Amino acid sequence: MGNVVSLQKPPESEAGIERLVGLVSGDMARVNEMILSRTGSDVQLIPEVAAHLIESGGKRLRPMLTLAGAQMFGYDGSRHIKLAASVEFMHTATLLHDDVVDESDMRRGKAAARMVWGNEASVLVGDFLLGQAFKMMVEVGSLPALDVLSDAAAVIAEGEVMQLVTAQNTTTNEDEYLAVIRAKTAALFAAACEVGAIVADRSADERGALRSYGTNLGLAFQLVDDALDYSGAQANLGKRVGDDFRDGKITLPVLLAYRRGDDDERAFWKRCLNDRQSSEADLDRAIALMATHRALDDTIARARHYGAMARDALEIFPKSDYRQALTDVVDFCVSRTY
Amino acid sequence: MGNVVSLQKPPESEAGIERLVGLVSGDMARVNEMILSRTGSDVQLIPEVAAHLIESGGKRLRPMLTLAGAQMFGYDGSRHIKLAASVEFMHTATLLHDDVVDESDMRRGKAAARMVWGNEASVLVGDFLLGQAFKMMVEVGSLPALDVLSDAAAVIAEGEVMQLVTAQNTTTNEDEYLAVIRAKTAALFAAACEVGAIVADRSADERGALRSYGTNLGLAFQLVDDALDYSGAQANLGKRVGDDFRDGKITLPVLLAYRRGDDDERAFWKRCLNDRQSSEADLDRAIALMATHRALDDTIARARHYGAMARDALEIFPKSDYRQALTDVVDFCVSRTY
Repeated sequence: MGNVVSLQKPPESEAGIERLVGLVSGDMARVNEMILSRTGSDVQLIPEVAAHLIESGGKRLRPMLTLAGAQMFGYDGSRHIKLAASVEFMHTATLLHDDVVDESDMRRGKAAARMVWGNEASVLVGDFLLGQAFKMMVEVGSLPALDVLSDAAAVIAEGEVMQLVTAQNTTTNEDEYLAVIRAKTAALFAAACEVGAIVADRSADERGALRSYGTNLGLAFQLVDDALDYSGAQANLGKRVGDDFRDGKITLPVLLAYRRGDDDERAFWKRCLNDRQSSEADLDRAIALMATHRALDDTIARARHYGAMARDALEIFPKSDYRQALTDVVDFCVSRTY
Repeated sequence: MGNVVSLQKPPESEAGIERLVGLVSGDMARVNEMILSRTGSDVQLIPEVAAHLIESGGKRLRPMLTLAGAQMFGYDGSRHIKLAASVEFMHTATLLHDDVVDESDMRRGKAAARMVWGNEASVLVGDFLLGQAFKMMVEVGSLPALDVLSDAAAVIAEGEVMQLVTAQNTTTNEDEYLAVIRAKTAALFAAACEVGAIVADRSADERGALRSYGTNLGLAFQLVDDALDYSGAQANLGKRVGDDFRDGKITLPVLLAYRRGDDDERAFWKRCLNDRQSSEADLDRAIALMATHRALDDTIARARHYGAMARDALEIFPKSDYRQALTDVVDFCVSRTY
């Protein structure tokens, strides 16, 4: 395998997210309180399932982006708290539904909620969180923010269906794949950032800049995630190497290896992914083929491209701790594999 | 069995809904267009699944209530069209998710979407429709309408989880059961009616009256549905008799028969519903026990009570074709079994 899998994260990638964490920690405590209070229900199952997922140690990157997006303009109200909680609920609902759709056993190193409480509870608690997310947005009362977030919700759902369709088709091309992750991942990053600027009453240019930052950060984030699934660094994230492969998921590393492979290799990818007939030995061969064709390295290179776009989007803002923190997040995302 | 199952619907129950259908037919054509245009997607699976469910001949009672709720006050804008379509999408999303949770094979006499396209597509297209529903609401731009509908979405989702918890517990009491159907069914009826009055800019009293009408109509509707599941009239609705029984669902007819039964009968209900061990012979016995204890007749009697409340809620409005049409709907719902 290439260097992608053999190197550990250097210390600076940890520092990358710490600046953001530090800047928003006060408001993030309020978001966490909001999250807990909004998963309360007399129906005991709801707080149980929600707590399982919400307290399972996700980074809460998306709500932090909303908070930073408002704070960097000196916003001192409290509307960003509920919007940030909404964003996290939308994300959590997606995870619950994804696990059902993917038949996942694990999520962030713990049993997936559906393994503990069943698919039914995962579907319905996901719906509950989505409902709460919309309720909170509406309570905030900003129609532009509602517009951005409800649009994201529709786009995400469309992206999930799109992924279901392309999931096992190895001939999916890179543009088609980008359309999927633009919808299912980048749209929420974009919305999370943009609503921060919206509550701070910023200009269309500034909203657009944060939106563009979020979109490209989201694309970079997802591409790195795709590469991590085939790399040793994966173990740090509490997921097994090769989950995407076993699920027959077509991701960029696969697309690249498939397109760059010969007939024999393409037949291999089709059998493993289109027909879902793969063994652990097949996974080893898949990883070896990716190394041969530099598929992981180039996936990371693509991610770096979007990372660069994200950084540039921030250039219209004067230098500040916030701008630096958002830039650091890009570096953190892109360097997760190294 | 009692008279509930042996009688056919008389002609006047058809007439009951026809007045409403006639009054809103012009606007309903616009809602149908909106529904079709909003299920369009480049992702072919989405219009396919949506069309399967949306064109499968539901009555579209909920969006008609929204239209009537606006038209009865002479509202001549077009905001009620999108809100009505939102209401239908919320309902359709719930059906898709319910079928997955209940593992239903059939829906309105056709194969359930999940049987044709799989659980994955049903979960995700449900999410897509929910996303589109919120998008349309936001486009309408009325914060009070958004408030009512997003609140309904949250309450419905909570009700679904509540039902999952109580589903197989025969000792659920009537109040607990009412709380479930108030959330999972009545909340959307209430919201559908109330947003009609909201776009027509009516007073809090008038909004409240339509809301109360919707809540009680929804309760009556659900209770009759529960009774129908154990009655011969069910075949007309494209569902098999006894689906709730096979799913181990606790509904009012079961609660009443259980509470009125002796120890032997209670053991029977527990085995069939708590433990989910039932045969077709058990279904026959269940129906016979309901007849003995007048459980279906009394479920219908309860439904009539809520129906009466719904009718009374309309009393503050001057007599009109619309008020009569809404009253007819109550009669239609309650008389579906007779």
